[in-house]
Amino acid sequence: MSRPLSLNQATTKYWTLAETVRGCVDAGIPALGVWRDRLTEIGVDKAKRLLDETGVVVTSLCRGGFFTAPDGSVEDNRRAVEECAAIDCPVLVLVCGGLPDGSRDLVGARARVRDGIAALAPYAAERGVRLAIEPMHPMFCSDRGVISTLGQSIDLAAEFPAEQVGVVVDSYHIWWDPEVERQIARAAGRISLVQVSDWVTPLPAGALLGRGHVGDGHIDNRRLVDAAYAAGYHGYVEVEIFNEEIWSAPGEQTVATVVERHRQAFG
Amino acid sequence: MSRPLSLNQATTKYWTLAETVRGCVDAGIPALGVWRDRLTEIGVDKAKRLLDETGVVVTSLCRGGFFTAPDGSVEDNRRAVEECAAIDCPVLVLVCGGLPDGSRDLVGARARVRDGIAALAPYAAERGVRLAIEPMHPMFCSDRGVISTLGQSIDLAAEFPAEQVGVVVDSYHIWWDPEVERQIARAAGRISLVQVSDWVTPLPAGALLGRGHVGDGHIDNRRLVDAAYAAGYHGYVEVEIFNEEIWSAPGEQTVATVVERHRQAFG
Repeated sequence: MSRPLSLNQATTKYWTLAETVRGCVDAGIPALGVWRDRLTEIGVDKAKRLLDETGVVVTSLCRGGFFTAPDGSVEDNRRAVEECAAIDCPVLVLVCGGLPDGSRDLVGARARVRDGIAALAPYAAERGVRLAIEPMHPMFCSDRGVISTLGQSIDLAAEFPAEQVGVVVDSYHIWWDPEVERQIARAAGRISLVQVSDWVTPLPAGALLGRGHVGDGHIDNRRLVDAAYAAGYHGYVEVEIFNEEIWSAPGEQTVATVVERHRQAFG
Repeated sequence: MSRPLSLNQATTKYWTLAETVRGCVDAGIPALGVWRDRLTEIGVDKAKRLLDETGVVVTSLCRGGFFTAPDGSVEDNRRAVEECAAIDCPVLVLVCGGLPDGSRDLVGARARVRDGIAALAPYAAERGVRLAIEPMHPMFCSDRGVISTLGQSIDLAAEFPAEQVGVVVDSYHIWWDPEVERQIARAAGRISLVQVSDWVTPLPAGALLGRGHVGDGHIDNRRLVDAAYAAGYHGYVEVEIFNEEIWSAPGEQTVATVVERHRQAFG
């Protein structure tokens, strides 16, 4: 089965949405993961026209979540759902939020995430949007996401109808997990999105911007992506890279590398 | 039940072993985790006399392992066992090793760790030394340790007699795990050592030196240590902190903080 490529626009961070859509068209990339800041910048109506005109498919909107914030981000999450619906994006990626300042109550934070998803999922489903829980690498547990493994994400998603809540299989976050293949198989019917990048060391300060191009690091992306397709996933493989050095390269060069690495790894 | 304190000498990195033993005596700390570089520096015979004279107990030797290195570190691991025996240290901590340069074969690396432990465990047991598998935080999977969770460590240890191979419960490495309390309970009879520190952000470059004093971060150390004692552990709580700023403080000040934080968290 083919492994169609999608470019998450975080990978070409300094491009506007219009520039990224153009970059996809020029490079023959059929699909795109959109970020909300760039969507707001252009506006949903203009973005929708641009996507319709070019035929570039939207594979995800990044991102909702942050349920552990003081206000639970309720209003902002509803806006994210509406933005998804406005550009025909079927998947809202949820980065669930870390621990509040000074908190050691991980169990409590995880319960708040569950409650936040319960409140948002029907609202999203009514608008044709499926929430996708993204397990975050455990190094982000305190500051970004208290949902740390794919297994935990599946357990959480399973509390809701499959059409309302799925999970994200992002190789960067889960590659280390001794159970990763078993959990990907178990995620059958719940995989909303597959994302890839690579694990390179040393990690930079803050650990956020350490991702590499597929093929530059230690992740066996082929094995993990194959496992997702074997579990019935039939969508795109979205490339999402946070890396200051890659961001500083010309966008066209980054896109060319993404295309080439995708062919090498999955072709 | 009391929670006796042990100072891992990595916490006072710039002190010699003799200085750290003196610091423990002066601060009323009854036990010490020893590092091999500092043990080599003073020599095992002199170290043994010093420990006997002061009555300071050795709770662990750091460290063996690195089974994924090209030579499997066989000779070096045997020397580590002999050093343990020479200073009456019952526990050799195993940092199992990361992925070789360029490797994506995580499954293979984990198999090598298993083989390395199988080769070393009888040699250690004959000398009265128990190996202790330390799960490493998943952010260290590629470069330090491919054994990533306590559950995985227990599964691995369970292939060997309990008196030969145990596990390390180090809060810094495992606090994020959704299964952490269940796995600590499951580790009953296998917990060789409990270590604590705290999770503070942002992580520094390289991620290695980001640990904080107990109480400064997001780990509920009390809950995790209580779980270990509830599982039948009755040894020391060893404080192991890697942090350039703490290392740069005067050793006496660091030790005083360790004692005070221990009292606050576990007293």
